[in-house]
Amino acid sequence: MKKNIAIICSGGDVSGMNPALKHFVEYSFENGYQPFFVHNGYEGLIDGHITPANYTDVAGILTKGGSIIGSARSQRFLEKEYREKAYKQLQKHNIDKLVILGGDGSFHGMNQFALEYKINFSAIPATIDNDIYATEYSLGVDTALNIIKNAVDAIRDTASTFHRAFIIETMGRDCGYLALVSHLTSGSELCLIPEVKYDLQHYKQKFQKELQNGRTYFIAIVAEGVEQKSEEIAQWFENELNIEARVTVLGHTQRGGNPTVYDRLMAYKFVHYAIDALMRNNTTNSVVCYTKDGFQYKTIQEVVGNKKELDPELIALL
Amino acid sequence: MKKNIAIICSGGDVSGMNPALKHFVEYSFENGYQPFFVHNGYEGLIDGHITPANYTDVAGILTKGGSIIGSARSQRFLEKEYREKAYKQLQKHNIDKLVILGGDGSFHGMNQFALEYKINFSAIPATIDNDIYATEYSLGVDTALNIIKNAVDAIRDTASTFHRAFIIETMGRDCGYLALVSHLTSGSELCLIPEVKYDLQHYKQKFQKELQNGRTYFIAIVAEGVEQKSEEIAQWFENELNIEARVTVLGHTQRGGNPTVYDRLMAYKFVHYAIDALMRNNTTNSVVCYTKDGFQYKTIQEVVGNKKELDPELIALL
Amino acid sequence: MKKNIAIICSGGDVSGMNPALKHFVEYSFENGYQPFFVHNGYEGLIDGHITPANYTDVAGILTKGGSIIGSARSQRFLEKEYREKAYKQLQKHNIDKLVILGGDGSFHGMNQFALEYKINFSAIPATIDNDIYATEYSLGVDTALNIIKNAVDAIRDTASTFHRAFIIETMGRDCGYLALVSHLTSGSELCLIPEVKYDLQHYKQKFQKELQNGRTYFIAIVAEGVEQKSEEIAQWFENELNIEARVTVLGHTQRGGNPTVYDRLMAYKFVHYAIDALMRNNTTNSVVCYTKDGFQYKTIQEVVGNKKELDPELIALL
Amino acid sequence: MKKNIAIICSGGDVSGMNPALKHFVEYSFENGYQPFFVHNGYEGLIDGHITPANYTDVAGILTKGGSIIGSARSQRFLEKEYREKAYKQLQKHNIDKLVILGGDGSFHGMNQFALEYKINFSAIPATIDNDIYATEYSLGVDTALNIIKNAVDAIRDTASTFHRAFIIETMGRDCGYLALVSHLTSGSELCLIPEVKYDLQHYKQKFQKELQNGRTYFIAIVAEGVEQKSEEIAQWFENELNIEARVTVLGHTQRGGNPTVYDRLMAYKFVHYAIDALMRNNTTNSVVCYTKDGFQYKTIQEVVGNKKELDPELIALL
Repeated sequence: MKKNIAIICSGGDVSGMNPALKHFVEYSFENGYQPFFVHNGYEGLIDGHITPANYTDVAGILTKGGSIIGSARSQRFLEKEYREKAYKQLQKHNIDKLVILGGDGSFHGMNQFALEYKINFSAIPATIDNDIYATEYSLGVDTALNIIKNAVDAIRDTASTFHRAFIIETMGRDCGYLALVSHLTSGSELCLIPEVKYDLQHYKQKFQKELQNGRTYFIAIVAEGVEQKSEEIAQWFENELNIEARVTVLGHTQRGGNPTVYDRLMAYKFVHYAIDALMRNNTTNSVVCYTKDGFQYKTIQEVVGNKKELDPELIALL
Repeated sequence: MKKNIAIICSGGDVSGMNPALKHFVEYSFENGYQPFFVHNGYEGLIDGHITPANYTDVAGILTKGGSIIGSARSQRFLEKEYREKAYKQLQKHNIDKLVILGGDGSFHGMNQFALEYKINFSAIPATIDNDIYATEYSLGVDTALNIIKNAVDAIRDTASTFHRAFIIETMGRDCGYLALVSHLTSGSELCLIPEVKYDLQHYKQKFQKELQNGRTYFIAIVAEGVEQKSEEIAQWFENELNIEARVTVLGHTQRGGNPTVYDRLMAYKFVHYAIDALMRNNTTNSVVCYTKDGFQYKTIQEVVGNKKELDPELIALL
Repeated sequence: MKKNIAIICSGGDVSGMNPALKHFVEYSFENGYQPFFVHNGYEGLIDGHITPANYTDVAGILTKGGSIIGSARSQRFLEKEYREKAYKQLQKHNIDKLVILGGDGSFHGMNQFALEYKINFSAIPATIDNDIYATEYSLGVDTALNIIKNAVDAIRDTASTFHRAFIIETMGRDCGYLALVSHLTSGSELCLIPEVKYDLQHYKQKFQKELQNGRTYFIAIVAEGVEQKSEEIAQWFENELNIEARVTVLGHTQRGGNPTVYDRLMAYKFVHYAIDALMRNNTTNSVVCYTKDGFQYKTIQEVVGNKKELDPELIALL
Repeated sequence: MKKNIAIICSGGDVSGMNPALKHFVEYSFENGYQPFFVHNGYEGLIDGHITPANYTDVAGILTKGGSIIGSARSQRFLEKEYREKAYKQLQKHNIDKLVILGGDGSFHGMNQFALEYKINFSAIPATIDNDIYATEYSLGVDTALNIIKNAVDAIRDTASTFHRAFIIETMGRDCGYLALVSHLTSGSELCLIPEVKYDLQHYKQKFQKELQNGRTYFIAIVAEGVEQKSEEIAQWFENELNIEARVTVLGHTQRGGNPTVYDRLMAYKFVHYAIDALMRNNTTNSVVCYTKDGFQYKTIQEVVGNKKELDPELIALL
């Protein structure tokens, strides 16, 4: 029986990957396995960037955002020819067990790979969008939310000083989770998300009345995936409410930063479940999901290709 | 039917109380109720420090730790005579509904009060110790954990530079939750908690070997409630391992600081459930608990007087 | 002799204004004066938004960015008619001494005002651009720099993970101070500022070589005032170096946030010198400058209308 | 002519050492020198823990407190026999130029060393106490001050909630700089430093009056070097003012943490001047001081053994 196991980060990176790598190394050794790193996602798998990992490699990384082994998207992995190559690279290192951190696309690719070759994998949801079906939580979300919070707190200071409207654009192409939770927890005045149809004119009267009653600023938190561009929304504030408006695009600051305790602990637990799945061998090729009933293994079919709905309880609070 | 509702913070304050106050005001108005603040816990209740609250009172408080309405412990509330006085104060303002944030002692006192007088209450667990039975989470824990994390991250820098052992003492008189989670998420070398018997000598050989293998520092996270004083543990490191040792007592920094997103969101949800309980009137005089099955109302008997056990899954990781 | 004194924030707000307001109130009382706040800049001066200030108004504001009395730009104050109105407002409150926080434009307007009416002022440089002639430091710069630092530190995590180039745009229309110091202190790979001509092609060979030697990401810090738009610079990285590039515009986050110790202390000292100037009455109508020889009073002519040069020692390090 | 140069961190570590190391490596290479690291202070010098340094060694260290090459105090270096050994270690690596970061004791030892052997050094003041004579600033002070600020801001939240007095003890055995500046910039109610005689009873009447006027808490910032222990001061508040009091000892958290922009920039400049001194060879064996007239080289005699006085302007504000 092979006693080698590897970990890969695939797709957009998140804060929390490094704590996951650290626990992967520690828990692999604890179980008598030799851990390996696959660098730079499936690209590195294809090209054989695979290195044995030890305690020294993961010393001091808990405080760093991103992933020390890199992450990437890979077009080549979509082609059989390159998956064949990837498999040979794993064979060279005698590895047949993989832990994969990523999102839908990454899971789908890995599943295809496992159908074709003798490898077992366990997948961990990692994306700041929190848009993966069947799991309530994906690694990186809590850190991203706290980075957004810090920015909104800072902008509120200057917004209230200068009588301006601020449009703060968060990540989230199809999923408004980050924007919605940030709205609820920062007390912003407006929140626009892709899941909910909106009509800005609907807010005009409300906001005008507030301005008359002494309100001096507005903060709008907007998911990048909404219909209108942030600049258009700023324009609307200027034209319809006659208040100077500015846009802040938080961008990739949301992926970095020292992981929060919550993300560190979830990284720890996700890895624990993922390795248990592979070493007990009866729940492999599944996704470790954090559900309302705790951690559960879900099949790829249960996870991939389904559109996650935002929690209706949260939407109700909008 | 009375349409007045009041909120009280009782016992040790936590970060997250202010977001709870903000949502209390907003959600009360949304339901057609007039919100009131009771200042400085049961002491203020007895003395009639009760004021109507409005939106202005809670503007800009989301970012502040502690509670803007104060909190306190009260000996007087243990006596019937003063509870009588407290009830009269509530009558003056025509208030018969109370939301209470606090811990076991506060809940017990309020329950007694509700047995004697015509008031209804709903209780929200709020204590950084996370030691309240029947709820997985108490308000303020996540912020406290992140403050500890920041301190441990900073101390690790200097510990590794100077070849020292650091004893970091967290809050937690009977409950090692803060210390244990901080240990797991900060990768410290030693964790001592009241729930688990330990023998320092047991670690001596392990640590000596690590020193021989190049380790240059130790970080020990210790709950204030363990048998030995932090200074004694420092002494042990100096005597047995011949490494200079220092103690840092985090103390009340753990109660303050800008609430994390998680605590802001939990504050929001706790208050939501608490107000719903009082206004639907069928689950009053209960505690809003966050359980493995989501939010649930528990009777005072189910909550108070039971000793919470630490999650065995977490202890197993120690 | 009149014993009333007022303070105004004018132009773009900065973090550090609130500590200045706090010390203004305290030090005015200490000198036997009644402090007043003029709200929302010269607009509030014209419209009479002038209120007496006391200790309670400034309690707890040290930790807040922006200015609790608002700030604004004013077109009207450029016209004699409105300055006349402003003067009458001051007369109503028996105020003939003003402390003004702002930049060149604000100083110029105030100087005109003082030439026409019997008022004395003392000006404090406050702008995150640090572009005011004759002073080495303007209030707010240190906080802005640390906010930029936090963002760059976070982005570096994700940049190194994902093999990308990041263009980080800082404030600074005519002045590259923020960008240059951020570059030097964050170890970024490229810095573009308005003061220094550049040719991107000049960097191409250097960066290509670095990529060959294993470099996996670039961070470019760019002042908003440089010739090319950030998006063009991103395009250049994609086209010429074949590396995916992203833009982050830090925007108004740079104006907010809890003031650093340095800005709190400078606020304290600036206000001290400003009030001393007005109460000793011999250095009024001047600007408090922090020069290489310490704090000095400079005339408006020495300050306004001159273009500040970046420290050549800093530029040499570029 | 030898083209090797080494850097040592000696004595208590500070945040800012790592940025200094980074610039040391870069600026040495820029000048055609090979940089070396001496690990763990004079202890490592004696034992020959000397390694050549390159760009990779200093990648990503700007954000870390402490020093990646360690620091230490050394009794052995006080003895001629061990200095002889140290010199031979340097000869092995053909090193005759040393940059030393530390305080008085470290400078004195190095000076003795340079009098005995053919080595040239340049010294950089690095101590969070800011107690080195002849320099206004020592590396690490700004970061320490901001860490204290964060703690005081957090404690104020809980202090005001719970009606308590908090004694916050900062570092500073003989020098009250940290405590005094923290007091001024955090608006605390009491500050005790070794340089200023005090009588607590003197404050009693003032504080009693404030309590009567509605004050609900006190924050006292106390340098560790004052006559009374923090616990005694807490006792005084409890006994004389009848307010519950708690002590927080910030301890070594003050040495760690991500260096501020100011410390990163000062590290940069200090190293610049230090290397220039050694390579131009005419100002060697001196200390780089940041004075009211900018950076200056001072002889060891001008620096060591003199007691630094606190800025009387700051004391006047007490």
